Amino acid sequence: MFENKERTDLAELGEFGLIDHLTTNFKIRHETSVKGIGDDAAVLNSPDRQVLISTDLLLEGVHFDLAYVPLMHLGYKAVQVNLSDIYAMNGIAAQITFSIGLSSKFPLEAVEEIYKGVELACNQFNIDLIGGDTSSSKQGLVISVTSIGYAAAGDVVYRNGANEGDLICVSGDLGGAYVGLQILEREKQIFLENPKIQPDLEGKDYIIERQLKPEGRRDIVDLLAQMKIVPTSMIDVSDGLASELMHICKQSEKGCTIYEEKIPIDPMTYETARELGIDPTVCALNGGEDYELLFTIKQADYDRLKHDVDISIIGHITDQASGCRMVSKSNVVHELKAQGWSAFKK
Amino acid sequence: MFENKERTDLAELGEFGLIDHLTTNFKIRHETSVKGIGDDAAVLNSPDRQVLISTDLLLEGVHFDLAYVPLMHLGYKAVQVNLSDIYAMNGIAAQITFSIGLSSKFPLEAVEEIYKGVELACNQFNIDLIGGDTSSSKQGLVISVTSIGYAAAGDVVYRNGANEGDLICVSGDLGGAYVGLQILEREKQIFLENPKIQPDLEGKDYIIERQLKPEGRRDIVDLLAQMKIVPTSMIDVSDGLASELMHICKQSEKGCTIYEEKIPIDPMTYETARELGIDPTVCALNGGEDYELLFTIKQADYDRLKHDVDISIIGHITDQASGCRMVSKSNVVHELKAQGWSAFKK
Repeated sequence: MFENKERTDLAELGEFGLIDHLTTNFKIRHETSVKGIGDDAAVLNSPDRQVLISTDLLLEGVHFDLAYVPLMHLGYKAVQVNLSDIYAMNGIAAQITFSIGLSSKFPLEAVEEIYKGVELACNQFNIDLIGGDTSSSKQGLVISVTSIGYAAAGDVVYRNGANEGDLICVSGDLGGAYVGLQILEREKQIFLENPKIQPDLEGKDYIIERQLKPEGRRDIVDLLAQMKIVPTSMIDVSDGLASELMHICKQSEKGCTIYEEKIPIDPMTYETARELGIDPTVCALNGGEDYELLFTIKQADYDRLKHDVDISIIGHITDQASGCRMVSKSNVVHELKAQGWSAFKK
Repeated sequence: MFENKERTDLAELGEFGLIDHLTTNFKIRHETSVKGIGDDAAVLNSPDRQVLISTDLLLEGVHFDLAYVPLMHLGYKAVQVNLSDIYAMNGIAAQITFSIGLSSKFPLEAVEEIYKGVELACNQFNIDLIGGDTSSSKQGLVISVTSIGYAAAGDVVYRNGANEGDLICVSGDLGGAYVGLQILEREKQIFLENPKIQPDLEGKDYIIERQLKPEGRRDIVDLLAQMKIVPTSMIDVSDGLASELMHICKQSEKGCTIYEEKIPIDPMTYETARELGIDPTVCALNGGEDYELLFTIKQADYDRLKHDVDISIIGHITDQASGCRMVSKSNVVHELKAQGWSAFKK
């Protein structure tokens, strides 16, 4: 179709470069549009509070592999991943639309499984399914989810509010979803070579669950509200800690220093990564799909947070000229690079 | 994957049957969720007005064929089709999210074309692009659009408000988009057989444009507001007049009688349908993709509307037992059947 014309490969720009390039001409005209493209969710004004809107596209073969993702888990994860973007704005999600494109290989029973997962996520996180679109698909399974959430105007947290000296916090632990994916990929290869061998996932429950059944951290949003802490910036960890830290630093025009020894990694993640011959820290930095919340707080808020076992303080915000750095366990300073999941990697 | 299990074919249920089946278990929990699944858009409460949310999925090979849809038109149409759902609730759209899944065959220049179309639609209809998701796709081009619109609480028009005696109105003219598609399909076949023959679209501008560049009828929403008419029910004509009438009648628990001679059909649509050996009325009833507004008004509002040349009164609402009927030009009464576009037709 474009053989004889100028061609610029999408992989050259990367996902964020592409979005920036395509949307520079678009103007914001409505007073209700408080924040458009460039954060976890868009922010719309309403007299009593702000409305948060986030949307995700999930495509078979890119975002999931039906060889090892059970359909119920897929429906559940599709919702959770999207809710996570609302939580990353310090909001509470209330509604979703769920759209699905189905190829003819799917019988009703398969679609029911997907919706069971959607229902489970809705029940668990108090979400109303309010709409969607249903279509046949000539190719693979296509899912699109849009979430609607709410927050008081002063409570919305953007990526661009981090200040020098702020503490960098992360919920839960990191790298598990990536290591879980490696185990699932390994077992898929073994199965493809010999379909009689059953997958060996024994003792790997936690990391498999991190991959197949992630949960948006609404509880952290509630906890922060209870502690009366409004983070200065926040993002969810979908592409890996390094990439998310760089988003916060770029948008806040700051730098950061984190400490390798402070990065929370679950023992099972650690051991399995070692078994597979990969560095657990690299899994946390670049693995992605953990859907934890990464946020910065003022130093004055430290006392209120320091005893919470589910939140780790991993470093602090510096000036922009210092860049994004990690001090390793052996005390060597590394520059952070975003090598997380890229939508257009070849 | 499901070879040994019970299989129910999706085509048996159809799109609306499938949605009903899958979503019966879902409860509405939030006071903000005024209306969930089952109309053109969802309705959310806000103190000063209501928020309308609509979402569409557009898949290559199902909703569009890149052999004859220019990419700019595709971007434009994807937005218009979705805005049309907001107008069908008697609301004004203000924001969209635009998500896209791109296979590696698309260079940047192709994606730019799509976004030019999105931009054109945004400029023309005063819309803010506030977000989206961008991904690679292993298969074809995938587009998902979500629109956000607003209306005063008393102005939102549902499908279920038609009353006996109400007049049935439709904007613009019908069947053109379908006949335009037939011409494009014919020229594609000729091209495939002999690529040296250039497509012959001479004199078919209007119907080609109806197919490739439809426009949501925001002007009708504005006009109704000016005339101080709030329709009793409304829907946009995406699947064909018959299917949309039946949605209104089913949800309003009413019947209807329309008159074939009153159905607005453009002369070019009429002549081209005849040339192609298809009945122009059938194109209007079952063709779809016209994106006109079909609505019902109280008889008392007739005087205010009767001189508007862009709105045709095609019949009236009856009791449910009478069913949905059309009186033909030769005065024969036919029962209407929805044979519009089906998402799961084989």
